[in-house]
Amino acid sequence: MEQSYRSTISIYKNILEQFNPALENLVYLGNNYLRTFHALSKAAEVYFKAIQKIGEQALQSSTSQMLGQILIQMSDTHRHMNSDLEVVAQTFHKDLLQHIEKNTKLDMQFIKENVRRLQSEMQAFVSESQRAAALEEKRRYRFLAEKHQLLSSTFLQVYSRACGIIQSKVPKWKEQLEASRNPSSRH
Amino acid sequence: MEQSYRSTISIYKNILEQFNPALENLVYLGNNYLRTFHALSKAAEVYFKAIQKIGEQALQSSTSQMLGQILIQMSDTHRHMNSDLEVVAQTFHKDLLQHIEKNTKLDMQFIKENVRRLQSEMQAFVSESQRAAALEEKRRYRFLAEKHQLLSSTFLQVYSRACGIIQSKVPKWKEQLEASRNPSSRH
Repeated sequence: MEQSYRSTISIYKNILEQFNPALENLVYLGNNYLRTFHALSKAAEVYFKAIQKIGEQALQSSTSQMLGQILIQMSDTHRHMNSDLEVVAQTFHKDLLQHIEKNTKLDMQFIKENVRRLQSEMQAFVSESQRAAALEEKRRYRFLAEKHQLLSSTFLQVYSRACGIIQSKVPKWKEQLEASRNPSSRH
Repeated sequence: MEQSYRSTISIYKNILEQFNPALENLVYLGNNYLRTFHALSKAAEVYFKAIQKIGEQALQSSTSQMLGQILIQMSDTHRHMNSDLEVVAQTFHKDLLQHIEKNTKLDMQFIKENVRRLQSEMQAFVSESQRAAALEEKRRYRFLAEKHQLLSSTFLQVYSRACGIIQSKVPKWKEQLEASRNPSSRH
């Protein structure tokens, strides 16, 4: 019974001293990840806006209207794919980081209370408590895995959509660019 | 002929005063874009390394080995997709920004010499020069469009590969996570 009690306390101690601090660190790293995500999104938007402006200049020229149209289409397509990536950032922020942060705070309290209760009522609850502690541990790892499974699904959706957006366009642009090499084509 | 000459000069002036400065600005914005790209890549790497560590902790537990394996697989998969995105960054840097930067510098010189030559030999070359100026303009817009067509192709390849990497895994993870809810499963 003594060993069972020590094992129970050690599982809770592990959740308290290793698992939860690791989650707090994860939330911190995740917020950094999110910041770089938004910075990338903004830089891409500014870059493709500049491509659009050059495309609009080409529309004013005597020879390069079609190239202008292609540049504007490229800018639109990449800006569209880029704003789609924001879906991943939102999932990551709302469905993952915020939940983890909230749960971790509540969990610290919960575990501390459990350990306090356990220490005062040691004999009666030892074996049941060990099972409960092990299940609590498993529940926490599952929570983390499930949240990341959701994130992976969102990545899959966004990448699939990006493929769909771009794959019909690339060969068409290539063809149009080749056609624009033809000296008889003035546009 | 006077009008033809003025039109020729105005095309060259446009390349010199609008197109090339716009490209210089584009290179500046592109380098910013690239910086945010690398920052994102680094932040993602650090984040998924932390997930891997938590997965390794779960492997040490009595109840959560399978969840640990799933977390480690998720970390590996996302790190793999992430390093794949570096292909886009390399294409963007080497095949696009560096070419544009080099061409723009050479072009400034080229156009200035053309204009100087044109002003001193005005009568003889006027009509031929106008055609040449128009073609020079078109060639520049085509260069820009072709470089971005290459970038789009690279995005397509990387997104397709990302879809391939992740799409078989998401349903499997979901299934395994659901299986791990079963109270008879201890792992």
